[in-house]
Amino acid sequence: MVVTNGKKVLELALVKAVYASSEHLLRYLTGFEAENGCVVADKTGITFYTDRRYIEAAEKFFLGSDVTPVLYTQKEVLERLATYQTVGISFNRTSHSEYLALEKAGVKLENIDKALATATSVKNEWEIGRIQVACEIAENAFLATLPKIKEGMTETELATELEFNMRKLGAQGVSFSTIVAFGAHASVPHHETGDTKLKYGDEILMDFGCKVDGYCSDITRTFLFGDDKKHEEFKKAYDAVLKAHLLVQETAKAGMTGKEIDAIARDYLKEQGYGELFTHSLGHGIGLNVHEAPAISPKGETAIENGMVFSDEPGVYVAGEYGIRIEDTVRFENGRVQSFMSKTDKKLVILEP
Amino acid sequence: MVVTNGKKVLELALVKAVYASSEHLLRYLTGFEAENGCVVADKTGITFYTDRRYIEAAEKFFLGSDVTPVLYTQKEVLERLATYQTVGISFNRTSHSEYLALEKAGVKLENIDKALATATSVKNEWEIGRIQVACEIAENAFLATLPKIKEGMTETELATELEFNMRKLGAQGVSFSTIVAFGAHASVPHHETGDTKLKYGDEILMDFGCKVDGYCSDITRTFLFGDDKKHEEFKKAYDAVLKAHLLVQETAKAGMTGKEIDAIARDYLKEQGYGELFTHSLGHGIGLNVHEAPAISPKGETAIENGMVFSDEPGVYVAGEYGIRIEDTVRFENGRVQSFMSKTDKKLVILEP
Repeated sequence: MVVTNGKKVLELALVKAVYASSEHLLRYLTGFEAENGCVVADKTGITFYTDRRYIEAAEKFFLGSDVTPVLYTQKEVLERLATYQTVGISFNRTSHSEYLALEKAGVKLENIDKALATATSVKNEWEIGRIQVACEIAENAFLATLPKIKEGMTETELATELEFNMRKLGAQGVSFSTIVAFGAHASVPHHETGDTKLKYGDEILMDFGCKVDGYCSDITRTFLFGDDKKHEEFKKAYDAVLKAHLLVQETAKAGMTGKEIDAIARDYLKEQGYGELFTHSLGHGIGLNVHEAPAISPKGETAIENGMVFSDEPGVYVAGEYGIRIEDTVRFENGRVQSFMSKTDKKLVILEP
Repeated sequence: MVVTNGKKVLELALVKAVYASSEHLLRYLTGFEAENGCVVADKTGITFYTDRRYIEAAEKFFLGSDVTPVLYTQKEVLERLATYQTVGISFNRTSHSEYLALEKAGVKLENIDKALATATSVKNEWEIGRIQVACEIAENAFLATLPKIKEGMTETELATELEFNMRKLGAQGVSFSTIVAFGAHASVPHHETGDTKLKYGDEILMDFGCKVDGYCSDITRTFLFGDDKKHEEFKKAYDAVLKAHLLVQETAKAGMTGKEIDAIARDYLKEQGYGELFTHSLGHGIGLNVHEAPAISPKGETAIENGMVFSDEPGVYVAGEYGIRIEDTVRFENGRVQSFMSKTDKKLVILEP
C-alpha cells in the first residue's frame, strides 16, 4: 500500500493545514495521479477532492490509508480553508491566479517550499520501491536493446527502440527525452537526438530513464560500436570516469554535503588531468522530478541523509572528439551509497557488429 | 521557417512588453523548445534569453526570424523589465514565487491571460502545419498497428505498440496517456489502460495522439475485434455517433459559437434516443495543449473563426455494456470545418482475427 506524504509535510511546515492543487503535489502528498483535484491535509487527516472521473478509482486506491476521497466543489474547499489560522501552500507550484483566488476567499497563506524540499529529498519506503522498479526496467530495457543496435540506424531509431522496451517492461513513460549520441555528438552533454547514422567504430552515449507511479529513474551508459583502434584517448578517459563514478559509491559517508560528495569525483578527475573536462555537476536528486533536491554539486550545502536518492554521473567531454558519462541512480542507506543498478556491466563494452 | 507569436500577443494584450518564462509560453511565443530561459517581446522585437546549453541551437533556429537569442542573466532581464510602463504576464502560468520576484524588482505587472486565450485559439500557418503532421503520424501509426492486434494481448501492449509506431513515424512523444479499452471498459470515457486481455468479439476503443514540435493531435477510433453477433445495439449506436460526428463537419458555419456547434451533435443524438448517453462535451481546442480554448461544449460562448483547431468527438456510453467515441482533430477554414484525418475509414471496422 502507498505510504503517503501529507502528514510528513504538515509536520515539517509548522502550519495548521496544507493545501495543494498541482498534479505534481497531488501525487506527492497522496500517491494518486489525477489531472484535476486538490488536497487538504490537517491534523485530522488528508482529504483528496476530485471529480467524478477519478472518484471511484480513488476510493479503491485509498482503502485503508490516511486519505479520504471526496467529490470536489470549489466553494466547499475555499470555505474550509478560510477556517484555518494558517494554510501552507507551495509558492513555486501555485500560479499567481490561484494565489489571488485563495487570498480573495480569506485564506491566510504561508509559503512551505522549504519544508517541501526537505520532505521530498528524503524518500519513504514506498517511494524507494517505485524508483527501484523504474531503475530495473531501465536497465533491462537497455540490455534488451543492445542486440538491436545495427550499423546505419539513426540516433532516433535507437532511442525509439529503447523507449519501446521500457514501455513493454511496464514503464508509464520516459523520465525525460531520451538522449542518444553517436560519435563526436557525445561531446555535447545535452545532445539533441537526431538523424545521424551509426558507423562502425562510433562511440554511443545513451542517457535515459522511465517513470513508475510517477517516480523516475536516470541512467547513462557509454560504449563502443566496434573498435576501430582509434579510441586510445577515449579508453583512458573512460577508465578515469568509471573510477570516479565508483569512488563516489565507495567513499561517500553520512554527514557529507552534496559539495563534498561532488568533490570525490571532481578531485579524482582533476588528479588524472581531466579537471577542466568535467563540465557539469556530479549529480542531482531524483524522485517525482528527474531533477530535484539535493544538489550534488560544488554548490550543494545539504548534508546527505539516509533515504536520499540522487544520480552519480561524472563525465569527461572533449569538444568535437568524444564524450563519456557513466550514471547510476543511487540511494543513501545505512550511511553509505548504494546503487539501484546492478544488471549492466560498467566496464567498457565493445559491441562487435 | 517558424512563424512566431510574440508580436501577435503583444498587439492583443495592449501592454508595452510581454514577459514569459514557462516552457509552454517560451515555445508558444518563439517556437523554440528550452527547459530554461525567458522571453521579452516589445515593439522593437522579441528577445529570447537562455543559457549556454541552448544558445547555439537557438542562434540557428532564429536565423532570419524576428527573435534575437541572448545569454541570460537574471539581473539584466529584471532591470530591463523595470523600465517598461507595463509588462504583461500570464497569471495562470507564472508561479506566485516568480510574481513576487518581479514585483520586488519594481516591474509593473498586468495579467494577459485573456489575450493569450484569444491568441492561442487561432493558429498561424506554421502551427497548422505542425498539427497536420501530428495528425498524419497518428493516423498512419494506427493503420500500422491494426495488423498487430491479436487475441490475448493486453490493453497496455496495444497502447505500447501504437506509441512505438508513432515514435517511429517521427512523433516526439504522446499528447496524453494513450487510452485503450477492451469490451465494456469502453463505457468509461477516461478508462485507465490496463492488463485486460483481448477476447474475440470485444469492441476496442483507442483514444490517442502525438506531438510534433510541441503541437498535438487527438483521435479516437472504435471498432470490433471479430463479430460474435452480440453487437446489435452497439452497431445502431455506432451509426448514430458517426452521423453526429459527420453532421458537425458538414453543417458548422462561421459565426456559430462552441455551444451551437456542440448542439449539432447533441440535438441529433437526442433525436435518436441517445441524449442522456452523450455524457461529455463535443470538443475542445487543440494546440500546444491537448485541451485548450475554444470550448466546443454547452458552455462554449466563443464564436468559431478561421484558424481555430478543435476536436469533433461525440460519444455514447452505456455503463457496463459498451462505449463509442469517434474523434477527429479538425480546423475551421474558409468558413467550414475541415478534418485533418483522411486515411482511416470511419465506417465500422470489424477486424477478423
